[in-house]
Amino acid sequence: MTHHEPSDNRLITSKSTCKTEAASQSSYREKLPGIVDEIIHSCTNDACHTHIDFHPIFSKEKLIQIIYKLREVIFPGYFDSSKIDPVNLSYALGQDVSVLFDQLSEQVTYSIRHDCFRYDMSCQDCEKLGYEKTLSFLSAIPEIQRLLALDVQACLEGDPAAKSPDEIIFCYPGIFAIMVYRMAHQLNDLGVPFIPRIMTEYAHGQTGIDIHPGAEIGEGFVIDHGTGVVIGETTFIGNQVRIYQGVTLGALSLPRNAGEELRGKKRHPTIEDEVIIYSGATILGGHTRIGARSVIGGNVWITESVPPDTTVLLAKPQLIYK
Amino acid sequence: MTHHEPSDNRLITSKSTCKTEAASQSSYREKLPGIVDEIIHSCTNDACHTHIDFHPIFSKEKLIQIIYKLREVIFPGYFDSSKIDPVNLSYALGQDVSVLFDQLSEQVTYSIRHDCFRYDMSCQDCEKLGYEKTLSFLSAIPEIQRLLALDVQACLEGDPAAKSPDEIIFCYPGIFAIMVYRMAHQLNDLGVPFIPRIMTEYAHGQTGIDIHPGAEIGEGFVIDHGTGVVIGETTFIGNQVRIYQGVTLGALSLPRNAGEELRGKKRHPTIEDEVIIYSGATILGGHTRIGARSVIGGNVWITESVPPDTTVLLAKPQLIYK
Amino acid sequence: MTHHEPSDNRLITSKSTCKTEAASQSSYREKLPGIVDEIIHSCTNDACHTHIDFHPIFSKEKLIQIIYKLREVIFPGYFDSSKIDPVNLSYALGQDVSVLFDQLSEQVTYSIRHDCFRYDMSCQDCEKLGYEKTLSFLSAIPEIQRLLALDVQACLEGDPAAKSPDEIIFCYPGIFAIMVYRMAHQLNDLGVPFIPRIMTEYAHGQTGIDIHPGAEIGEGFVIDHGTGVVIGETTFIGNQVRIYQGVTLGALSLPRNAGEELRGKKRHPTIEDEVIIYSGATILGGHTRIGARSVIGGNVWITESVPPDTTVLLAKPQLIYK
Repeated sequence: MTHHEPSDNRLITSKSTCKTEAASQSSYREKLPGIVDEIIHSCTNDACHTHIDFHPIFSKEKLIQIIYKLREVIFPGYFDSSKIDPVNLSYALGQDVSVLFDQLSEQVTYSIRHDCFRYDMSCQDCEKLGYEKTLSFLSAIPEIQRLLALDVQACLEGDPAAKSPDEIIFCYPGIFAIMVYRMAHQLNDLGVPFIPRIMTEYAHGQTGIDIHPGAEIGEGFVIDHGTGVVIGETTFIGNQVRIYQGVTLGALSLPRNAGEELRGKKRHPTIEDEVIIYSGATILGGHTRIGARSVIGGNVWITESVPPDTTVLLAKPQLIYK
Repeated sequence: MTHHEPSDNRLITSKSTCKTEAASQSSYREKLPGIVDEIIHSCTNDACHTHIDFHPIFSKEKLIQIIYKLREVIFPGYFDSSKIDPVNLSYALGQDVSVLFDQLSEQVTYSIRHDCFRYDMSCQDCEKLGYEKTLSFLSAIPEIQRLLALDVQACLEGDPAAKSPDEIIFCYPGIFAIMVYRMAHQLNDLGVPFIPRIMTEYAHGQTGIDIHPGAEIGEGFVIDHGTGVVIGETTFIGNQVRIYQGVTLGALSLPRNAGEELRGKKRHPTIEDEVIIYSGATILGGHTRIGARSVIGGNVWITESVPPDTTVLLAKPQLIYK
Repeated sequence: MTHHEPSDNRLITSKSTCKTEAASQSSYREKLPGIVDEIIHSCTNDACHTHIDFHPIFSKEKLIQIIYKLREVIFPGYFDSSKIDPVNLSYALGQDVSVLFDQLSEQVTYSIRHDCFRYDMSCQDCEKLGYEKTLSFLSAIPEIQRLLALDVQACLEGDPAAKSPDEIIFCYPGIFAIMVYRMAHQLNDLGVPFIPRIMTEYAHGQTGIDIHPGAEIGEGFVIDHGTGVVIGETTFIGNQVRIYQGVTLGALSLPRNAGEELRGKKRHPTIEDEVIIYSGATILGGHTRIGARSVIGGNVWITESVPPDTTVLLAKPQLIYK
């Protein structure tokens, strides 16, 4: 029988030059059960948010893996850990789609069941719906590919710093955020709860670009630089629109506690085809419409509609030179 | 005995269609020792920053793990990799708190010892302090839970796009940044060096929301969208305050090399209860106080106090239409 | 022989309280081959972007690992997973540099070969160039260390909230973004394609600070807070310049489809020594030059040159109080 020496996990060994009194970890650890009891007591308080349930919950980590797996399918060969060549293309894609079906249908089922149980809704055939909605989503991948190819093309045409489509696909945060939005929007249209917003908020965290999955966005959409962009839930954006960092397409100021009353109403602007909106511009309100081919200058603050073919600029601000 | 063929790790094999002269990696690798010597020489230069020490240093990676483990305890069941149900709740929480005690006390001890040795301060019983401060911190978890439940509630009331408390807890970057701030602020109050700022800067990287752990923030705090928000070290924020993306609560412009002189002084504004600050507004200065229930409009730039119950808007800027 | 019970991987077991009709996963999975065929068909469409090739492609994940390994070499002991002490310093650095040579030369070779094949350029001795450029890059590490030490020093002098150089190195997103920029700029100068931009866009995602690797930036550069900062490809920044969150150093508005025409031209401003630019300021245009020691106030929008020793402020905007 082997003899095990007790392992010494103390932080400071006798060799340390830092002379502390021999701090006995155990005297501190003895207080932990009391702390745990306090936390459990706090968790049973109605004010505290818990998800203590016999059913598993969807997982942000798994949804992030799904985003990257979907990216491998949408842009084959660019982001695969293994090489994609003409020989293994169909095998690799087939395997990816099969894995995606299993992983995504699991998460969709969990998200539907979460609503089903937690909010005492009538049962919705969660598992069956999970499979059906996942199949519908996967069937839409070619359309998502088509839209993203147009987004890449529009980005290349408008950005002198872009050297190739490959650079845009590899590096540009705008194309990443738009890709995740286009995935999430599709799931949102299919009525999948939670998951679309988790996806777009992940992209928000990665890029600083906050697009609500409910927004409607047309073809050839470009976001350059992008940090600070906010596109609200009921925004409508036409084709060939280009926006820059710090642009907000938002709601007008809300009375306190307006959350319930305005939920579901059109609160964000409409941007028609071929509009350009420069950095820091803010366009607010559900009735605000920016007409086709208009240009909105940097830092402009707009709460009223603008006719087509109009350029709106800040009057040159008075600068003080000292 | 098995015979192993030497593995061929060269980048381009003979099958490659790219005809390079057989680049001999070894002729390049031979130059590495000279480069290493140059780097070591550079590291002994006083100007270069190194942490070459017989003592281990705290780890950003481990602190990030601690943030997520704390989140599992604060919002039980939402983010756990394994299911939390009424049966295993106390076991799971107990184990989480036990692990947190070990992991966090180690990091706190390292951070205290870092100051102790590196800046020739007198020894501070690093290990004992590490245990004590960690226990105090863990005892504050129920209070942090209480505050975060109020933050979630305030967010739900103010945001028409928020569909449920669960969506806010899962997705909203604002609630993540506030959660990490509330952890870090507690550690900051306990006099733990380095770790609070590492935590809030991690949240800053994830969300674009930069809250200094020294700031004081009341109950029911809401940050919507959040990218670009800056809340400085000596900011004071009351209860039921709501701010939007791009809001800066900052210091007035500083003379060059003012770092030393202003360190520790109140340099950032005071925001009283129930104030709303819309996107892009900038409020600067330690003597600036925004009175209760006031509303600060988007893009406003304020360096003087505002009385209670006041709405401050930019005068409608002159726009030029072409 | 052990008998294995078939594992039941169905999402909802018979014990579930959610009564769904027994959803047969197989009936849904049978539709996957048709979906895969549609995706493959879509991938052979000219509009779709694929990288289906017999050659491996560079990897963003590996480049991120390289950034963090380089950081361990540039700031020895701060970020190492194992302790760096005076005894193992040269071994640890030597091993790190050796690993970096292998990993980075592989990625550089792949990036060069990508251009070589994909754009029908003549073969450029990809592997040999990969080794040479990687060696040149590694030789520049001491210079990068020297520049970063000056950046840290400048940050400490200008920020009252900075408590020590260590805090800046550990926590400050500005120093992280500048570090990655200084690596990427070196690789950009060596003519390495793709990799510099992938590196700076990674830092952009982590910090909200978007510095194009082509920009030229002098000594003692400080970015405070940083979210929303954009520094364009042809920007020139002198020594001891300090900028704050939300500052854009950008191009003037572009006619649609100007991408091709303006590619490579100087489109971004020149900032001379010791300039300070406060949060939210926007400075645009290749002919715009901010003279030495000038101060640009918050939210200022500038498209023309400013002489040295000038302070430019927004005229106090008219605020409306209600």
